[in-house]
Amino acid sequence: MEAVVIRRGETSPTVTELQRPDPGPGEVLVRTLRVGVDGTDREVIAGSHGGFPAGEDHLVLGHEAVGVVVEADDTAFEEGDVVAPTVRRPPAEGPNEYFEQGQPDMAPPEACVERGIDGAHGFMAEYFTSPAEYLVPVPEEVAEWGFLVEPISISEKAIEHAYAARSAFDWDPETGLVLGNGSLGLLTLAMLENRGYDRTYCLGRRDRPDPTIDIIEELGASYVDSRATPVAEIPDAHEPMDFVYEATGYAKHAFECIEALAPGGVGALLGVPEPWEFEIDGGRLHKEFVMNNKALVGSVNSNVSHFEAAVRTLGGLPAWFLDDLVTAVHDLADYEAAFAEDETTIKTALQFNQI
Amino acid sequence: MEAVVIRRGETSPTVTELQRPDPGPGEVLVRTLRVGVDGTDREVIAGSHGGFPAGEDHLVLGHEAVGVVVEADDTAFEEGDVVAPTVRRPPAEGPNEYFEQGQPDMAPPEACVERGIDGAHGFMAEYFTSPAEYLVPVPEEVAEWGFLVEPISISEKAIEHAYAARSAFDWDPETGLVLGNGSLGLLTLAMLENRGYDRTYCLGRRDRPDPTIDIIEELGASYVDSRATPVAEIPDAHEPMDFVYEATGYAKHAFECIEALAPGGVGALLGVPEPWEFEIDGGRLHKEFVMNNKALVGSVNSNVSHFEAAVRTLGGLPAWFLDDLVTAVHDLADYEAAFAEDETTIKTALQFNQI
Repeated sequence: MEAVVIRRGETSPTVTELQRPDPGPGEVLVRTLRVGVDGTDREVIAGSHGGFPAGEDHLVLGHEAVGVVVEADDTAFEEGDVVAPTVRRPPAEGPNEYFEQGQPDMAPPEACVERGIDGAHGFMAEYFTSPAEYLVPVPEEVAEWGFLVEPISISEKAIEHAYAARSAFDWDPETGLVLGNGSLGLLTLAMLENRGYDRTYCLGRRDRPDPTIDIIEELGASYVDSRATPVAEIPDAHEPMDFVYEATGYAKHAFECIEALAPGGVGALLGVPEPWEFEIDGGRLHKEFVMNNKALVGSVNSNVSHFEAAVRTLGGLPAWFLDDLVTAVHDLADYEAAFAEDETTIKTALQFNQI
Repeated sequence: MEAVVIRRGETSPTVTELQRPDPGPGEVLVRTLRVGVDGTDREVIAGSHGGFPAGEDHLVLGHEAVGVVVEADDTAFEEGDVVAPTVRRPPAEGPNEYFEQGQPDMAPPEACVERGIDGAHGFMAEYFTSPAEYLVPVPEEVAEWGFLVEPISISEKAIEHAYAARSAFDWDPETGLVLGNGSLGLLTLAMLENRGYDRTYCLGRRDRPDPTIDIIEELGASYVDSRATPVAEIPDAHEPMDFVYEATGYAKHAFECIEALAPGGVGALLGVPEPWEFEIDGGRLHKEFVMNNKALVGSVNSNVSHFEAAVRTLGGLPAWFLDDLVTAVHDLADYEAAFAEDETTIKTALQFNQI
C-alpha cells in the first residue's frame, strides 16, 4: 500500500510503498478515506516537533484521519463503519495509569507516543490498524469531513477544561476571543458561535481581502488585526473577554491574554512555542490575575470522550463553513500540494479512498 | 464604643471613641469578641492597599472578626449566637449581579467595598452591625478561634476553584506545596494535611530555629528554604507538585510555580504584588503549561459558602496547631502590640470582649 512518510534527514515528505498492516487481536483494519494536514505536520516534517518510531528511519505522517472499517475482528465495530482514530497510544513499556483511566490526553509527553507525530506511525496510508478502543464512530453523512473530528476534539477538550475551571461559580460567558485565524482557530470560533456567545472575536495579522476574515465575519464574529490592536489592548479597543482561546503559539499571547480577560474569565492555551525570553510586568499581571479571579488552562491532545463530542459538534457546523474552511482535498498523486501553504490555503486534506 | 481606626495621613492606628452603630432593618447588632490581624491590615495601615469610606477621614480596621449577636432584629439569628461576618458589601450604587448571585467574591474590585479594607468600616470596634445574610454561624466551642474563619475561608475558595479547574479529569493530588510560611500559608498547609495529601511542603526564607518551621514539621510537612531551593528547582530537589498555593505575593513565584507543578497540576495564586518588570522564558513556560496540561487560578476574597466550609475546617484543626499559630491575643489597651511583628509573631488578634 502507499503511504506518505517523512524520512530521517529529509525535510519534505515522500510517497512510499509499505506492507499493508495486519490487525492483531482486538484490532481493527481501517481503509483510510481522508487525512487532514495541520501545523503540527509541518513541524514534524521540519523536525521541530515529534520524532521517529524507535529504531526506524521513517515516520508515516498524519494524525487527523477518517476511514472505513474493513476487518472488524471480534470488536464492537462492523465492516463499513466510518471511524476516526485517536492519536495517543501507550509507550513501549505498555499502558500506564493515564491509559488505564481513559485519559491519555493527560499523560506527560514521555508517557505516551502519538501516531503520526511522535514515536508511532500515523494514518497517511491506504490502510491502518488500531485497537478498537481508540476508534470513534463517525456518522456516514459527515464522513467526508471526518478528518476534522481530531482538530475539533482538541478544542472540545480545551473548552471542557476551561469551563471546568469556572465551574465553582455561576459563570455565563458572553464574550469570546480566539487568538489565531488558522484552521483550528476558525473551527473554535464556529464552536463558540454554536455555544451561544453574544459577541465573538478572532485575532489575526492579515490584510483584507482575506478568506479567513471573510469566514470570521460570515460567522458573525469581529476580526481583530493584532498589528493595530495588541492583545493587551483588546479590552479598551473592544471589550474584556470572558473566554480567550490561544491557538497561535506566540508565547507573549499567553501572558498578554491575562489582561484581555474579563473578571472571572479564563484563557485556554494550546499553541506550543519555542523557548523565548522576554520581559513582562509580572507584578501587574499577577495582581490582575488574583484581584479579578482569572484562570489559565493549558491543554494538549484529546481523549475518546472529546472525539465523541467532536463528532456531535461536526454535525452541527454549517455546510458553507466547512466548504469554505477546507480549501482543498488532494489525491495522493498530488500529495505535495496538500502540504503547501499560501494566502488562500486554510485547511487541506489528502484523500486515499472514497467511501 | 471604642474602635481601632487608621486616619487619613497617618501611618499607625489609633483607638478612638465612636458612636455605637444602630442596626437597620434586617441588620444584626454584634458584640465583637476578637478580630485577627493580617498582612492586608498592615498594607491598609501603610496606605498601599484599600481606601477610606467615601467622604470620611478614618477607616475602622479589621476584616477577620468573630462576635456575639446582641440584637437579632427580625432575622434568623438569636441573641447569643456566635457569628463571623463576611467582608465584601455592595458598593454605593447598591447590589449588583455579583451580590444578587451570592458570589460577591467574584466581583471586580470596583463592584464592591470591603469592610475594614476598602471603602467600608471594619470590625475592630466593640460593636458592629451587619445584614444577617453576611453573617455565618460559628459553634460556641470554637468561638475563641472564630477570627480564623475569614482567613480559612480565603483558602477554602482558592482550593475549591483550583480543584474545579481539575474536575474535567480524574485527578488525585498527592503532593502539595504552599509558598509562604505566614499565618495564611500555615493554615493552608494544615488544610492540605486534612485533605489527605501524601506529602506536603512549605516554602519560606527563615533560619532554624524558627516557630513556623516547627509548625511545618509538626504538621508532617517538609520545610523548603527558598534561599537554597528556588521554586523552579523544587521538582528536582524534591518532586513535582500536584497543587501549589502561592501566598507570598512575590510576583516571580506566580510564573516559577508553573515549573514546580506536576503534569496535570494546578497553582492557586493569592498574593497581591506591586508592579514589577522582570524577564521570563515565556516560550518555555508557555510550552510547559500546554504540553503538561497545567492550570493557574487566581483567587481573592470568599463568599458565605466558603465561610461555612471554613467553620467546618476550623473544627477539625488540631488544638496544638491553633495554640502555636496564634502567638498572641491582645486586649484593646495593648492594641499596638497586635500590629507589631517580630520573628516570633505568627498570628495575632485583638480581643474586644469575652463570650
